[in-house]
Amino acid sequence: MDATRPLDALNAARNKRVLVELKNQRRYIGTLKAFDIHINTVLENAEEYIDGELKRKLGSLFIRGDTITIISPSEAVKE
Amino acid sequence: MDATRPLDALNAARNKRVLVELKNQRRYIGTLKAFDIHINTVLENAEEYIDGELKRKLGSLFIRGDTITIISPSEAVKE
Amino acid sequence: MDATRPLDALNAARNKRVLVELKNQRRYIGTLKAFDIHINTVLENAEEYIDGELKRKLGSLFIRGDTITIISPSEAVKE
Amino acid sequence: MDATRPLDALNAARNKRVLVELKNQRRYIGTLKAFDIHINTVLENAEEYIDGELKRKLGSLFIRGDTITIISPSEAVKE
Amino acid sequence: MDATRPLDALNAARNKRVLVELKNQRRYIGTLKAFDIHINTVLENAEEYIDGELKRKLGSLFIRGDTITIISPSEAVKE
Amino acid sequence: MDATRPLDALNAARNKRVLVELKNQRRYIGTLKAFDIHINTVLENAEEYIDGELKRKLGSLFIRGDTITIISPSEAVKE
Amino acid sequence: MDATRPLDALNAARNKRVLVELKNQRRYIGTLKAFDIHINTVLENAEEYIDGELKRKLGSLFIRGDTITIISPSEAVKE
Repeated sequence: MDATRPLDALNAARNKRVLVELKNQRRYIGTLKAFDIHINTVLENAEEYIDGELKRKLGSLFIRGDTITIISPSEAVKE
Repeated sequence: MDATRPLDALNAARNKRVLVELKNQRRYIGTLKAFDIHINTVLENAEEYIDGELKRKLGSLFIRGDTITIISPSEAVKE
Repeated sequence: MDATRPLDALNAARNKRVLVELKNQRRYIGTLKAFDIHINTVLENAEEYIDGELKRKLGSLFIRGDTITIISPSEAVKE
Repeated sequence: MDATRPLDALNAARNKRVLVELKNQRRYIGTLKAFDIHINTVLENAEEYIDGELKRKLGSLFIRGDTITIISPSEAVKE
Repeated sequence: MDATRPLDALNAARNKRVLVELKNQRRYIGTLKAFDIHINTVLENAEEYIDGELKRKLGSLFIRGDTITIISPSEAVKE
Repeated sequence: MDATRPLDALNAARNKRVLVELKNQRRYIGTLKAFDIHINTVLENAEEYIDGELKRKLGSLFIRGDTITIISPSEAVKE
Repeated sequence: MDATRPLDALNAARNKRVLVELKNQRRYIGTLKAFDIHINTVLENAEEYIDGELKRKLGSLFIRGDTITIISPSEAVKE
């Protein structure tokens, strides 16, 4: 995710597993398929985590951009 | 819901049953009939769920986009 | 309320009784007279419900769009 | 307040007493003198009500539009 | 503060003492020197009131518009 | 900070010590180096105060405009 | 981070360690790689701190701009 513009960084993560965190504290891990300038984001094979626990598998998932706080390639996250 | 742009993914879900979740925690399941760039969304045969319980059947339902957090094809959701 | 664009769906509900719900939990039922792209909405013969109880009759009612969560034809709502 | 566009409805209420309610629960009753597309609104001879009680007389009152939830001709309100 | 457009009303209050109230409940009284279409506002000889009590004198004060709820000529306020 | 437009007032405070208050209640005092139409603001030699107490020295500080409530020349503030 | 425009200040911090604080109180320290006019920001080798405690290492991190309150070069922060 090396970039001079933030969306280049997201583009470098396309088709990779990413962690997406929302303002309502929910976390989704899925394969990043699409995003736009509003950071509207589509994940495939998405999993929802609440308080660190897997809650639901969601298949395809559209996330409205204004609800997102952070996006990070998930394989690099170390808790 | 395969796409290079997020709205393509929504388009692929048109006329299918989708789950729409709002910032106020409410969940709606209905047939996706229409959406726009603000993610204003119209469902048909919509059902409202609060805390996992069916609360109301709403027929046609217009949802203002800025209140939406996620949209997902409902048949793929596994809780 | 059949449509390919969300505002077409609202247009199909014009002059019909609709349920409008707000972010502050209030519900209004009235005859849909007007709306615009911000979802600013005008109802006639509007009734306000709080916690399911009729609180006020408001005659004409202008509702600022950004405070709205959902709009639905009221005759189809089944609680 | 008959109109095909929401702002036409506000225009029909110009120079009449209206009720304006805010997101912070305050209510103002005053003579509607001006408004714009953001629903920034000016009332004359405005009265502020909190929990149904008259709190202040404000003379001229400019209300920033994004803080408004509803506007209604006040003579038609029946509690 | 007579006007057909809301900002005309603010213009009529220029160089007069006004009351400005914020979403965070704070109230400022000062001489209205400047404002723009976002309702960004500059007061001179501003005083801050919290719960009706004078808390600080601020001299010049720039207030970001989106934090404002109401503006009113202060000499007309009757509590 | 005399001006007919609000940003002229900020401009007059450039290179002077200013107090910047945020929606999350934090206060920063620093030398105003830069700002833009969104009120994104840069302070030098910034100090952070929480509940009136100096918490951190931050050197250069970029503050996102939409989180700001007020800006005032700090030497004029009298508590 | 000397500048006449706020984004020049961010530009001067590129490739340096910065502290980014969010509206939800979380703090991230990482190498500033990219940002845009919305203050969407990309950090490398990012660390997340909650209540002053290191919680996670995130590698690359995209932060949506509207969730950010402040950005500051981290080596200059003195608590």
